[in-house]
Amino acid sequence: MENKVNLAEKLALLGAPFRPGIVGSLNDYKLAVVKVHGEFVWHKHDDTDDFFLVLSGRLTIQLRDRDVELSAGELYVVPRGVEHCPKAEYAEVLLIEPEGTPNTGDAGGERTAPERRI
Amino acid sequence: MENKVNLAEKLALLGAPFRPGIVGSLNDYKLAVVKVHGEFVWHKHDDTDDFFLVLSGRLTIQLRDRDVELSAGELYVVPRGVEHCPKAEYAEVLLIEPEGTPNTGDAGGERTAPERRI
Repeated sequence: MENKVNLAEKLALLGAPFRPGIVGSLNDYKLAVVKVHGEFVWHKHDDTDDFFLVLSGRLTIQLRDRDVELSAGELYVVPRGVEHCPKAEYAEVLLIEPEGTPNTGDAGGERTAPERRI
Repeated sequence: MENKVNLAEKLALLGAPFRPGIVGSLNDYKLAVVKVHGEFVWHKHDDTDDFFLVLSGRLTIQLRDRDVELSAGELYVVPRGVEHCPKAEYAEVLLIEPEGTPNTGDAGGERTAPERRI
């Protein structure tokens, strides 16, 4: 990584919600920011945990048996294999996952976003 | 991870600066918070990149050829093998590294802190 990353500046470059933008790398992990507005899709990642850190707003990570409610400065790691569905009125989130991890996990579908660097 | 992590609450549990507290895991990576006050030691990690996200305050990551100045909401990943020395008047930082990575890298010495979960 050549330069530091200002997360607010990167978030301002994003367009639609649920379209992550990769802002850096940590070994073979991608660091991405995403806007959440509305409800995503239920999915899981069988091969990796899934890191969420809320930067602004409030995020609900729905699990099958409960909801995890996150405010700014709170993080949650969804264990591998656990079904989840993020939703928010509006939230800005830092995501960390291995490179190549699809945003929709095993669900696929129209909300699958290409990996793009911003 | 059973529960969400409130980073400010975890930081309040820390004692002295430069003694990271592990707050969670992402696969085989540890998520840790640390207080920085003063100057750390020059070191490098030959086998891993080193993730810093400033949560509050201002952090300077000294490199041999320049300084990287980070404010809250800014992150920097020190590439593997690159010598660095963090310093701050006061900063609170989220660190992400593979489990087992010593805080002092190749330098060792009295500031090497045990891995501890808080």
